Amino acid sequence: MKIVITSVKNEKIKDLKKLHQRKYRKQTNTFLIEGEHLIEEALASDWTTTEIIVSEEASIPEPAKNLPVTEVTKQVFKELSFTASPQGVMAVVEIKTEEAVNGELVVLLDAVQDPGNAGTIIRTADAAGADSVILGSGCVDLYNDKVIRSTQGSIFHLPILHADLEEEVDQLKEANYTVWATALEQAENYKNLPVPSKTAVIFGNEGAGVKDSLLEKADERVTIPIFGKAESLNVSIAAGVLLYYLNN
Amino acid sequence: MKIVITSVKNEKIKDLKKLHQRKYRKQTNTFLIEGEHLIEEALASDWTTTEIIVSEEASIPEPAKNLPVTEVTKQVFKELSFTASPQGVMAVVEIKTEEAVNGELVVLLDAVQDPGNAGTIIRTADAAGADSVILGSGCVDLYNDKVIRSTQGSIFHLPILHADLEEEVDQLKEANYTVWATALEQAENYKNLPVPSKTAVIFGNEGAGVKDSLLEKADERVTIPIFGKAESLNVSIAAGVLLYYLNN
Repeated sequence: MKIVITSVKNEKIKDLKKLHQRKYRKQTNTFLIEGEHLIEEALASDWTTTEIIVSEEASIPEPAKNLPVTEVTKQVFKELSFTASPQGVMAVVEIKTEEAVNGELVVLLDAVQDPGNAGTIIRTADAAGADSVILGSGCVDLYNDKVIRSTQGSIFHLPILHADLEEEVDQLKEANYTVWATALEQAENYKNLPVPSKTAVIFGNEGAGVKDSLLEKADERVTIPIFGKAESLNVSIAAGVLLYYLNN
Repeated sequence: MKIVITSVKNEKIKDLKKLHQRKYRKQTNTFLIEGEHLIEEALASDWTTTEIIVSEEASIPEPAKNLPVTEVTKQVFKELSFTASPQGVMAVVEIKTEEAVNGELVVLLDAVQDPGNAGTIIRTADAAGADSVILGSGCVDLYNDKVIRSTQGSIFHLPILHADLEEEVDQLKEANYTVWATALEQAENYKNLPVPSKTAVIFGNEGAGVKDSLLEKADERVTIPIFGKAESLNVSIAAGVLLYYLNN
């Protein structure tokens, strides 16, 4: 017999709904993703998808057919969904802790708070061939639904770590990375700098930029020149310009 | 005697609220901007700001002191505001119709629908020293509050036109511009192309890309290579990478 959950007060639904909050994601070590594309990306990756939640009138994506399924009414699905017009399919994914950083291009985010910016930088880092992304303190939660949506699946493509950026910078320098910190002032135009053999680039908070303690540790303060009247570039645009400059 | 509007049913407030809708913006040839920074940018530009709306507990920005002011209660301001935590100051600005396109770098947007993308591209075009931005049919309305906010004031810095892109491309080619259209397939890596002396670059819809009729008219189909597992770049990131490549 097929069971369809019809009440938003059902305990299971209440537990799933709690995953909208960072503290419950941490507690359970799981997070929710929504939509067919993200679920396919999760299933094609080495992340563990534990469960599918599907709205009555929606269908389960082909590669998810062997997973446990919770079927719910349209109204219950709306309660769980992050979007105004839900596609009708979500999944629970286990948080995966990444360890190692290696490769030639590493991206560090210092207190990037806007979910769209954080997600877009992760997507851009993936596209530009960066090897990993390290989120420092003050960054938006990686498992925030808007971050995940903005990554367009790239969250499942490359290692993303949470770490203390000052310690990371020390370690990266020891491992012969050249550390660039982006800055608007007292900084060198990136085009005047040779592309290092191994680079770590720090991008900063939308308002305050990269914090002083990290600017001081960096090998270079790097800037993208402003030719017009804009005061600055959006941080994800700056990431696009620099990461594509660094990866030829 | 100071008059403070206390009711959201006041006719003046109802008229201002209508400017949240595109059709009334068109009808009145005006639009609303919110926040001190945007108002300062408008006043410093050659756009005409006609009126300030201020919440009781907020203050009028210094350069706006000579303009007509409508004072409203906090509750009425909330009704007019586009944001969850309003700063308490808005302005009415007249729509300015731009005509001429000139210079060495022109940006064309074909059906870019996301307000954040359109606004961020305008901001990036300004920063990268582009000379104008042309919005084709199917683009989000330039005077949408999210577009304006994402431009961070750049809406007031460079000419932004609405035009038929096919006609524009013909005219640009006649005026010796090299027209680049961005594409994911059957396209040349931008780094293999010399920087033309005058360039027009077309960026396309978030899902469908640049439409075929424009791809056919372009001198070059240009792509930004994907080194990782991402399927594509966000359109505003693509704009950042290409515009900074083109303007050295």
